[in-house]
Amino acid sequence: MALVSSGIVNTIGFDADDTLWHTEILYTRAQDRFKELLRHYHSPEWIEERLYQTEIANLPHFGYGIKAFALNMIETAIALTEGQIAGQELQAVVNLAREMLAADVQLLEHAVETVAQLATEYDLMLITKGDLYEQESKVARSGLAHHFRHVEVVTDKTRDRYQQLLARHQIEPAQFLMVGNSIRSDVLPVLALGGCAVYIPYHLTWAHEVAAPPPAGHPGYYQLEHLGLLPDLLRTMKP
Amino acid sequence: MALVSSGIVNTIGFDADDTLWHTEILYTRAQDRFKELLRHYHSPEWIEERLYQTEIANLPHFGYGIKAFALNMIETAIALTEGQIAGQELQAVVNLAREMLAADVQLLEHAVETVAQLATEYDLMLITKGDLYEQESKVARSGLAHHFRHVEVVTDKTRDRYQQLLARHQIEPAQFLMVGNSIRSDVLPVLALGGCAVYIPYHLTWAHEVAAPPPAGHPGYYQLEHLGLLPDLLRTMKP
Repeated sequence: MALVSSGIVNTIGFDADDTLWHTEILYTRAQDRFKELLRHYHSPEWIEERLYQTEIANLPHFGYGIKAFALNMIETAIALTEGQIAGQELQAVVNLAREMLAADVQLLEHAVETVAQLATEYDLMLITKGDLYEQESKVARSGLAHHFRHVEVVTDKTRDRYQQLLARHQIEPAQFLMVGNSIRSDVLPVLALGGCAVYIPYHLTWAHEVAAPPPAGHPGYYQLEHLGLLPDLLRTMKP
Repeated sequence: MALVSSGIVNTIGFDADDTLWHTEILYTRAQDRFKELLRHYHSPEWIEERLYQTEIANLPHFGYGIKAFALNMIETAIALTEGQIAGQELQAVVNLAREMLAADVQLLEHAVETVAQLATEYDLMLITKGDLYEQESKVARSGLAHHFRHVEVVTDKTRDRYQQLLARHQIEPAQFLMVGNSIRSDVLPVLALGGCAVYIPYHLTWAHEVAAPPPAGHPGYYQLEHLGLLPDLLRTMKP
């Protein structure tokens, strides 16, 4: 890790969904109920496959988040029933979206104490992709907001976006470490900038976020089993 | 205006929707097509009334933007037809949303030259409420992005939110002037902070945004007929 750790990390970026709090599980459960709703029409596998196709096709139009997901479910249900599905059944989908939006924020294990502890030593930034309204609401309800110096909701997590964010807050990439559950969004773009990245896998990953991890031993790249191990890792990185 | 103009304005905030580009017209047109879709069930007035009720009830759940609007139309259509509406007809509503999202950004008259001219003398900020994904896409397609030093998409435009934004960018309220078409979102909160505000009415206003203007002669408050008059007003404000 010689190349990167010449800078001393002073700012830690945290992804939020499935890094600090559970999110994908909400989608998985909603999808289960969606498959149940359409069980008289198609097999669960085919419904899942078609929903995923709709999501990918609509991503450039609808972006991320629960409202987009709801519209994708509605469109998929109409297509899969050749327009035969009744309004009443589609209301169940709208209700599903409202329930998801109102669901309690379920923090991951170790999130509270890790964030609280690191906030005393580092500047913390929350960097999350998705719908502004949803994410702000979750940040507010998480009880963690006061530990973060900055909260940034973004529409994508590309190398350029990270560069822009770090520049805005006058943070050197070499002094920045990103923590998240997506190789594609939290790890690769930050390593490409010369920052550090800690990958903490979550047991569910949306197919669209799946990417190959960097080669073992890549400078600045770490993998941990859970958030509680982060303070120890940071200690080993100090000069 | 003695109280406020002791600071010299150096930063101008612009609202975007119906201040720089047409937006409400898209909603009005979509609403017309929605009323047409349901014409066999109810009167246009009743459909409009019920849609508005749904929008207000869902605002805390869905927030602003086209995706929220689409879900509101779908829910209203289901309710107004007692669940009888067919999937096929609801697909028309989803399509309407996709068309709205893809619609060309139609700049208001005078927007291009006013923004370009003021950018040479002032720091410009775009401050717009709504869906992050939608707004970023419109900013990018407007051709105006490079004139703005900062683009801020927010979930609300309260006094606290403006205070937070100005603090983040180290702008004194007395040196800040906000331009927009909403008394409620662009004018009152900024005046409350001690900034200046220019109200430029648009011929359509969503009922939820309607508010009484400040009393005539309120310090720092101005009203203009169109954007093209803004540079002249700013010249008169210089000491």
